[in-house]
Amino acid sequence: MKSVRGFASATVGNVACGFDILGFAITEPGDEVILTRSERKHTGCPVTISSISGDGGKLPLDPRKNTSSFVVLKFLEYIRTHKGQDCTGHISLELKKHLPLSSGMGSSAASAAAALAAANELLGRPCTKMELVHFAIEGERVACGSAHADNAAPAILGNFVLIRSYTPLDLIVIPPPEKLFCSLVHPHTELRTSFARSVLPTDITLKDATRQWGNVGALVAGLLTSDYALVGRSLVDVVAEPKRAPLIPGFAEVKEAALNAGALGCSIAGSGPSIFAFSDSAETAHAAGEAMQKAFLASKKSLKSDMWVSPICREGARIL
Amino acid sequence: MKSVRGFASATVGNVACGFDILGFAITEPGDEVILTRSERKHTGCPVTISSISGDGGKLPLDPRKNTSSFVVLKFLEYIRTHKGQDCTGHISLELKKHLPLSSGMGSSAASAAAALAAANELLGRPCTKMELVHFAIEGERVACGSAHADNAAPAILGNFVLIRSYTPLDLIVIPPPEKLFCSLVHPHTELRTSFARSVLPTDITLKDATRQWGNVGALVAGLLTSDYALVGRSLVDVVAEPKRAPLIPGFAEVKEAALNAGALGCSIAGSGPSIFAFSDSAETAHAAGEAMQKAFLASKKSLKSDMWVSPICREGARIL
Repeated sequence: MKSVRGFASATVGNVACGFDILGFAITEPGDEVILTRSERKHTGCPVTISSISGDGGKLPLDPRKNTSSFVVLKFLEYIRTHKGQDCTGHISLELKKHLPLSSGMGSSAASAAAALAAANELLGRPCTKMELVHFAIEGERVACGSAHADNAAPAILGNFVLIRSYTPLDLIVIPPPEKLFCSLVHPHTELRTSFARSVLPTDITLKDATRQWGNVGALVAGLLTSDYALVGRSLVDVVAEPKRAPLIPGFAEVKEAALNAGALGCSIAGSGPSIFAFSDSAETAHAAGEAMQKAFLASKKSLKSDMWVSPICREGARIL
Repeated sequence: MKSVRGFASATVGNVACGFDILGFAITEPGDEVILTRSERKHTGCPVTISSISGDGGKLPLDPRKNTSSFVVLKFLEYIRTHKGQDCTGHISLELKKHLPLSSGMGSSAASAAAALAAANELLGRPCTKMELVHFAIEGERVACGSAHADNAAPAILGNFVLIRSYTPLDLIVIPPPEKLFCSLVHPHTELRTSFARSVLPTDITLKDATRQWGNVGALVAGLLTSDYALVGRSLVDVVAEPKRAPLIPGFAEVKEAALNAGALGCSIAGSGPSIFAFSDSAETAHAAGEAMQKAFLASKKSLKSDMWVSPICREGARIL
């Protein structure tokens, strides 16, 4: 019997202007996956789920339907066919969820990334992190119906990750400026990714598109040159935010509160309902986060929320 | 009598994925503007055009309609109202055009930038380069009907310039990787900017837009980290190039020839008909440029062309 504990943290996709092509990881909170390998023969699936905590009973226990076990099965299949490494015996998976579901915080990606980090360690590290990203993306397909990488890639790789292309997959890791801090506020309400996606238009004006890619280029430049003011000015989303903001009660007030507290910029985390803000110090990030929580409480729906302040995670999924 | 000779070089707007928000300057060819100030009183316009060469008689001699004199008039007005500096006397302008008109090489921007560099020097440098960009953009409105900055800004500032926003104008100067060379090929055919613009759609799919801004982000990352292969992979334009390529006889063959010769990437310069390619050495850039010229000649229209190989200009408009 050998046991390994993997951890992967929350991630924020889109990052305002970077709709569908940019995401970053924070250092906490995150999900844990404990994999235990025994040599006992199994007749059915080589991975079974022993327990899941923290999900309120919502996640499936079927190992082919649960994201974290699904990606481990994909991983085992890959190392058998591509590395000639057959995993005999049986793997038992325990998932400790600390991320809220349907929150915009990359909950499914964190579980998948934690499971993959643990599986890779358990089997003697046959895969690179870049290989693991592929399985994590497959996990997103199981979890939310589309194989997006903007949470999966940073959950594995840490940092900011830009997805230049999906076919072939071309990921660019962008290390964060040293003093960049994220305030992440999760209001106690759910917003399904599929619904948040359904409000987006199929077409946009070339004018809006041009504004958006001007901001994407500027955001990347700001990150790579540690120009905090430029990072802030570039956190403009003229495409998704205007459509999704009405789905989040109090969004405008929360954003205004973050900026008034000194945050560099603020937008929706992934497809929401969580909201992130960037600041150039931990102190400002705390102040911004608290102001955002107050604004959620003061809004019409009087929403309670959770809040985390964190630097950008440079490490990605890891072993505890 | 005092005389100053300004110079500004050709620029390439769009840079594949960076439609309307990115441009760069090369070191040659360029336009020259000689300004001569005399103290004689004038009754009408404080700037007159003494001569224009190299334009085939196509450019207007009316100082309020010619881009290079128009921007000097704007400059004089600005330093009078904003710097309290009254330019008494009269300025005579001589324009030596070396850039072909309607070529996609930023011809009007180069004339404007050369004139502004000379005017600023002649008047004791009252303006910063960033202030001069505003007048150069105004010149683009006179020259081609819309106040675009993707040629005007790099013509003044050199380097790559990203336009994050027009209102307010927010320009990000991106220094080029050291070994980046441009092959610029100008086929002997004209393509009016207004026509090249008319073939573009008003709306694009969100899917195409997302691909485009993924490439914009990646291109900026490639430039700032001197990742030449990434620069090459990012030179993808799914928005303007597919619509404009059919307006340039032999475009597909020319692009293929550049890539086969080892260029990192290749696309339309501005709205065309010139085509640029990037390479990671002067030798490859020469080989690519020659291959592009041969491909133009071998194409249906058997187009002759001019070709320049140049590093990216870091200096911008200057005094000779």
